[in-house]
Amino acid sequence: MIYLDNAASTQIHEDVLDSMLPYLKEQYGNPSSIHRYGRLAHKAIEKARKQIASLINADPSEILLTSGGTESNNMVLVGISTKNTPCQIITSSIEHDAILEPCKKLTQNGVDVVYLPVDKFGMVNPLDLKNHLSEKTCLVSIMFGNNEVGTIQPIPEIATICNERKIPFHTDAVQAVGKIQIDVKELGIDLLSISSHKLNGPKGVGALYIKNGIDIEPVILGGGQEHGLRSGTENVANIVGFGKACEIAKNNLDTNMSYVKKLRDTLIEKVLNEIPEVTLNGDPQSRLPNNAHFTFLGVNGEDLIIKLDEYGIAASTGSACSVHTQRASHVLQAMGFSHEQITGSLRLTIGIFNNENEIEQTVSTLKKIVEELRSFSPFKEKYSFVTKT
Amino acid sequence: MIYLDNAASTQIHEDVLDSMLPYLKEQYGNPSSIHRYGRLAHKAIEKARKQIASLINADPSEILLTSGGTESNNMVLVGISTKNTPCQIITSSIEHDAILEPCKKLTQNGVDVVYLPVDKFGMVNPLDLKNHLSEKTCLVSIMFGNNEVGTIQPIPEIATICNERKIPFHTDAVQAVGKIQIDVKELGIDLLSISSHKLNGPKGVGALYIKNGIDIEPVILGGGQEHGLRSGTENVANIVGFGKACEIAKNNLDTNMSYVKKLRDTLIEKVLNEIPEVTLNGDPQSRLPNNAHFTFLGVNGEDLIIKLDEYGIAASTGSACSVHTQRASHVLQAMGFSHEQITGSLRLTIGIFNNENEIEQTVSTLKKIVEELRSFSPFKEKYSFVTKT
Repeated sequence: MIYLDNAASTQIHEDVLDSMLPYLKEQYGNPSSIHRYGRLAHKAIEKARKQIASLINADPSEILLTSGGTESNNMVLVGISTKNTPCQIITSSIEHDAILEPCKKLTQNGVDVVYLPVDKFGMVNPLDLKNHLSEKTCLVSIMFGNNEVGTIQPIPEIATICNERKIPFHTDAVQAVGKIQIDVKELGIDLLSISSHKLNGPKGVGALYIKNGIDIEPVILGGGQEHGLRSGTENVANIVGFGKACEIAKNNLDTNMSYVKKLRDTLIEKVLNEIPEVTLNGDPQSRLPNNAHFTFLGVNGEDLIIKLDEYGIAASTGSACSVHTQRASHVLQAMGFSHEQITGSLRLTIGIFNNENEIEQTVSTLKKIVEELRSFSPFKEKYSFVTKT
Repeated sequence: MIYLDNAASTQIHEDVLDSMLPYLKEQYGNPSSIHRYGRLAHKAIEKARKQIASLINADPSEILLTSGGTESNNMVLVGISTKNTPCQIITSSIEHDAILEPCKKLTQNGVDVVYLPVDKFGMVNPLDLKNHLSEKTCLVSIMFGNNEVGTIQPIPEIATICNERKIPFHTDAVQAVGKIQIDVKELGIDLLSISSHKLNGPKGVGALYIKNGIDIEPVILGGGQEHGLRSGTENVANIVGFGKACEIAKNNLDTNMSYVKKLRDTLIEKVLNEIPEVTLNGDPQSRLPNNAHFTFLGVNGEDLIIKLDEYGIAASTGSACSVHTQRASHVLQAMGFSHEQITGSLRLTIGIFNNENEIEQTVSTLKKIVEELRSFSPFKEKYSFVTKT
C-alpha cells in the first residue's frame, strides 16, 4: 500500500512506539498517585511536556495536555468566550469543523462570530481582520495551515494586529506543527492547538499552548489534573509518545521537510505535466510542504479515491472528518470553486515514510485512472482530455 | 513492587496490549478515511464498541466513546442539563470530583444541584432520593461503587424510583464495571460511565452508555465522529485495547472477582486481627470486591503511604485524583468521620495480578510500619497500640 493521506493521520514512528511501551507495560501508575508508580508516570508526563513545548519554543508550563486537536480547539473557543461577555470571535471561513462547529453552537448562546472570507488561494487578508476588530472582540482564531488545500495563512501579520489590540490570538496549527518552523514567542501567538497523530505520534492526545497570562476557563472538570484546566487521568503512554514525536520532529524538521517537500513537488510537477485539465489548488508558494491538492475536471473525486484504493493508494478528497457530514468542501466553496471543481478534487499528503518510487507509481496510476474515469465522464465533450505524453 | 492501588489505575493485560499493537504499528489509518486504512480502523472501533456494550448488556449503538471516565461524567451533567431548563440535578455527597466539580460549575450557571447525604457506611438512602425528586429534576446521578471506601449503592432501588418518574438515571460506574455483574437493561440504568484503565485496559479512553432514546447535547464538537456526539479523531489503538479489556473482564468476571475478593478478604481479616485500633471503612457487605479501606488511629495516612512505598508497596489514602487539591476526603467527611479518623485512612485495592504472597507481605509490612509510626504518635497515650499476636 502507498499511504498518501498523511494529513488525515500518520504512521507512528518506531522510536515513538518504543518510548510508549514501558507505559503500556510495567509503568502503569496513575500520575496522581504519590507512590513510585505514580511518580514515574508523573515524571514521564513532565518530560513529554518539555519536548512538546520545545518544538514550538513555549515554556513547558504553557502546554496543556488534551485528548487531541479537536478538544484543544473547543477548549479555546468555549474557555475564552465564557470568560468574556459579551464576546465577539473572529475566525475564518476555511477553518476545520473543530472550530466551525463549536462556533455555531456559541452563536446560539449569544456569541457573535465573524467568518473572514478567503481569496481563491484560500488566503485570509489581514486587512479584513483589522476592519472587523471591535471592542467586543475577545478572540481571533485563524488556522495556521489549511487541512485541505494546505495554504499557510499570514500568521505573523495576523498576530501583530491582535497583539497591538491585546486581543488573544489562537491558531489551529494541527497541520502545521512539525512541518514548518513555529516559534510562538517570535510569532506572537497566544494560543495554539497541536495534534499528536498528525506528526507521527499516537492518536488520542494533543495539546493546547496557552501563553502565560492568558485566562481560560476549563471545560472538563474533576480531579484537578493539568492545574485544574483539564481533569481526567492522563493518557500517560500516548503523552509520552506525543513528546517523543515532537522531539523527533524538532530534531529532523529541516531534513524531513525538505525531503517531504521534494517528493511533493515532484508529485505536483508530474501530475500537472502528465495529466490534462488538472489544476493545483491552494496557494502555490505559501503552502504546507506535505500537501498537494488537485482538481481533475470531469472526474468525481470519490470515484478517484475508490479506484486509487483498489490500486493500493490511500488518498482523500479533503478533510477525513467531513466524511461523516457528506457535505461539499466548505473550504473550496469559500475559495469560490464551482460545484464541478469541488467534485473533482483530490488531496494527496506526503509523509516522512514515503519515497520517490511511491510517487512515480502514484502518478502513473493516477494517469491511468483519470483517463479511465474520464472516458465515461459526462463532461467528456467539454474538455480536451487528451493524455499528455 | 507490590501494587495495591488498582482503584487508581491497573496494569494493562498482556492480551490487551497485543490487540493494540497493530494499531500502533501498521494500521494507522484515520477511521474517517474512506480508503482501506480508514476502513480497517473503523472496523476495529466497531468491534471494540460491541465488546464494551456486551460487558454491560447494552446495544453497541448505545456506547459513546470518550477520552475517559471524567469526560463521560462531564458530558452527562452538561449534556443533559443543557437540554433541560430549568434543571435540577440530584446527586450524592460522595461522588468523584468528576461529578462534583462540574456540578459546582453548573450551579453557577443556574442549575439546582441537590447532594444526598450518606450514612456512616457511605450509603445513600433511596427514600432520600424519592423525597427530593421534583418536577424540575432532569437527572439523577449516583455512583455505582465508591472509589474510596468501595461501598456499592442501592442501584436497583434508585433506578426503579427514577424509572417510575421517567427521570434519566446516570451512574458513574468507573470503579464497578468489570468488577461486578452489571446489566444496564435489567437494572434500569439510562446512562453509565466507564473507564478503560480501571479494568486492565489502556488510559485515555472511556465510554458513556446512553440508553436509546435519551437525548443529550454534545460537549466536544467538530468533525462529527460518534454520530456528532463526540468529535475528534478516534483513539483507535486505545479503543481497541479497551474493547479487549472488556471482553476479558466479561469472560473471566466470576473467576477473577472471586479470586480478587478472596485476596481482599484475607487482607481485611489479617489487618483487623493483627493490628490494634484499626477499623474497616465502607459497607462491610455491599462493597466492591477489590476494595479495602482502613483507618489506623494515631497514624497519618500519608506517612503510611510513604513508608509503604519505601518497602515497595503502592497504596493510597483515597482518591488518586484528589492529591492535587490536598483536601481531606469529602467521602469520609460525608460519612461523619472525625478529622483523626480521616487522617489515619488507607486504601488498598487489589487487582487480578496480585497474589496471596503479596497480601501476606503487605500485612506484615503494615504491622511493622503502623507500630513504628505509632511509637511517636501524639495519640500514643489515647489508644492501646499494643500489637496483637
